[in-house]
Amino acid sequence: MDAATSLCVELGFAATTIEAIAARAGAGKQTIYRWWPSKAAILIEGVEIQRDARAGFPDTGDLRADLRTQTSNVLRLFDSDFGAIWRGLIAAAQNDTAAADGVRRILRVSIDECIGRLEKGVKDGQLRPGLDLELVVELIYGPMYHTWLLRTRPVNASYMNQVLDALAPALFIT
Amino acid sequence: MDAATSLCVELGFAATTIEAIAARAGAGKQTIYRWWPSKAAILIEGVEIQRDARAGFPDTGDLRADLRTQTSNVLRLFDSDFGAIWRGLIAAAQNDTAAADGVRRILRVSIDECIGRLEKGVKDGQLRPGLDLELVVELIYGPMYHTWLLRTRPVNASYMNQVLDALAPALFIT
Repeated sequence: MDAATSLCVELGFAATTIEAIAARAGAGKQTIYRWWPSKAAILIEGVEIQRDARAGFPDTGDLRADLRTQTSNVLRLFDSDFGAIWRGLIAAAQNDTAAADGVRRILRVSIDECIGRLEKGVKDGQLRPGLDLELVVELIYGPMYHTWLLRTRPVNASYMNQVLDALAPALFIT
Repeated sequence: MDAATSLCVELGFAATTIEAIAARAGAGKQTIYRWWPSKAAILIEGVEIQRDARAGFPDTGDLRADLRTQTSNVLRLFDSDFGAIWRGLIAAAQNDTAAADGVRRILRVSIDECIGRLEKGVKDGQLRPGLDLELVVELIYGPMYHTWLLRTRPVNASYMNQVLDALAPALFIT
């Protein structure tokens, strides 16, 4: 996995081949295929490990603060090697079914974690009741991905604070 | 341009080469290069023409209705051949500077048009004053691109109506 992620960071997703991964890992192609069905599968597992380690959902009891913390952790991952790999997987997902399934699976876990934190926010009287929570996730993370993938302007923690502040009248009970 | 767009729809962006475009157009490579510096440039121009023809900003005097109309026109484009080409350009933009510059240029025009319509909405007393209008564009179109590019669920006109309704307390004066 170290071989796959370092190659993907150096060469990009398209140029990272199973042959090159095997060569850098000092292993045979068959050894790689015994563990993973495709290069996308290796990189998806790498992204999942990073995400689980570094972008979980805190619960300090303050939903807005926790959303600020979590989105700024995601942006720190975007700025790391993980960001280059995640970007490559999302690009590949536009016309590669294995990559698309992997991206969707990674996001499903993150979206469900976020929905869990939002449900707690409703119980705590911090998030407006009756909202479609899947949609709330998209309202928060949509601008982040829009700006990051379409590269229209820099996306950083202060940008996400602006997003959360602008959404506040629609989402939060003050 | 017809040759380039039809090849991109059939084969995807990566597999569309200047050689293949020239062959399908019955022209020499040099003729193609006389008009466009790269395949990205041809496809970007194709996207711009479609966008200008089919996804401009209406002004009926009712901002929310106009946003519903415009976003549903964009989604109709996403479902057309244009959508496949735009998806390919955005994927390529993740590691190709010419594609990234083209995507940014296309979006800049759309974002500025949207901001113009939002400014009119402020004057008409329909949009809250004092909002960062560039951010408002991202709040509206971010969820659309998030859901379309990350393929987390179908994005259609009814989805965009939900987005606009959910954003209403943050954006609109009722």
